Amino acid sequence: MLTDAERSRICVVLVRARNPNNIGAVARAMHGFGFTDLRLVNDYSVSLEKARSAIDASDILARSRFFATVADAIADCRLVVGTTAVGKRKQEHTIYTLAGGAPLIRNAAASGPAALLFGSEKTGLSNQALSHCQWLMTIPMHQTPGVRHASMNLGQAAAVCLYELVRESQETPLGILPSGATAGELERLTELWGSLLDATGYAQRRPAGADPDEVRRTIRRLNLSQSDARRWLGILRQIRWKISG
Amino acid sequence: MLTDAERSRICVVLVRARNPNNIGAVARAMHGFGFTDLRLVNDYSVSLEKARSAIDASDILARSRFFATVADAIADCRLVVGTTAVGKRKQEHTIYTLAGGAPLIRNAAASGPAALLFGSEKTGLSNQALSHCQWLMTIPMHQTPGVRHASMNLGQAAAVCLYELVRESQETPLGILPSGATAGELERLTELWGSLLDATGYAQRRPAGADPDEVRRTIRRLNLSQSDARRWLGILRQIRWKISG
Repeated sequence: MLTDAERSRICVVLVRARNPNNIGAVARAMHGFGFTDLRLVNDYSVSLEKARSAIDASDILARSRFFATVADAIADCRLVVGTTAVGKRKQEHTIYTLAGGAPLIRNAAASGPAALLFGSEKTGLSNQALSHCQWLMTIPMHQTPGVRHASMNLGQAAAVCLYELVRESQETPLGILPSGATAGELERLTELWGSLLDATGYAQRRPAGADPDEVRRTIRRLNLSQSDARRWLGILRQIRWKISG
Repeated sequence: MLTDAERSRICVVLVRARNPNNIGAVARAMHGFGFTDLRLVNDYSVSLEKARSAIDASDILARSRFFATVADAIADCRLVVGTTAVGKRKQEHTIYTLAGGAPLIRNAAASGPAALLFGSEKTGLSNQALSHCQWLMTIPMHQTPGVRHASMNLGQAAAVCLYELVRESQETPLGILPSGATAGELERLTELWGSLLDATGYAQRRPAGADPDEVRRTIRRLNLSQSDARRWLGILRQIRWKISG
């Protein structure tokens, strides 16, 4: 789990991103995952007023900084990581998958600034920009034999990388699961259900399906919440009333 | 690790996505992670020729299918999962984080078709669309106190979700899960159940409990196996026969 202080130490550096909407989409992903430090390396200025794709991330754009060179942009960082599409260039760096590299970035951010570099959508990071990186990280993409390597747009790539950085392997449902029905309530439901199978003639036609243990198991498999169990009881009572009436 | 066959069983369903570039970006993310089955639910046709954002994913767009309703789009699916921004609506479904829900989708895809639903960027999935879902999944976003909940664009949200589905992990399914009922079977069960609520007078006494979306959600919460769903259909038909007789 990254603290807010750690998130503030991880900066996203966009090298030669030219499309304001791509920059805006990156800012939006940063905002969504709690990152704030956006740095732009460009040899000419890009008008961020056109970055309508930023939506709620206008604060991040307003505080973003322009730099003329990669060296200037990352001068304060203790770890510099480049992102790349695998198979694109000859390998001169150690390349980690996203899941492999993210813990290293989290560790670095515990003690000092770390930079995550993204290149332009068309050409990626240049060899010069890559030469500033300690190692590289790649999003594992699906390989179709004979087909050009797939890629994502800049906003998507940033979203996936930042998601992995904050990812928690939490497997329990969010929020409050509804309170389960009691065994007593389930048993009343089971008895009522069994009596309906008799009353409708189903038990005579399909004895195996109306076996009391099978009926009990069937009801238990539903994993009913208390409110659902009570509603089902109400409905079954109404059905019984209708049938006997 | 998802096999190619499993990836082909997971379909992405976009409900009321209107912007061709958003649809194209989703197709691009699918292509990048090896998914192929894109289904579009719209009450009017969207020109996919304008989806320039698809880049290498033109095959996926060419093979995508239009449906008039959510029910039609997911009829063959044994698991239907909605995506949502947490905190947006009152909670009527179990909500998993992405990391919590992905293993359940992988398990389902081992034996049959599974659907992952995305709503429009502006409004998300409607309550009617959500009522078709067994449970919901959300991308955990950073909460800034007092600030409107962050969100991502549709292409980013799809990329992050699909990345999590193919992300390498050591999780292995616990035993073999029974094959789930198809959405078509569950919808038949829903209709039969709704007609019983009318026929018994329950709908008149408790209109809220007989609301069609609420009935649909109630049935989806049961997570019925195929064999159980068929048995329930048989029992409900018997009840209907008894009531009308």
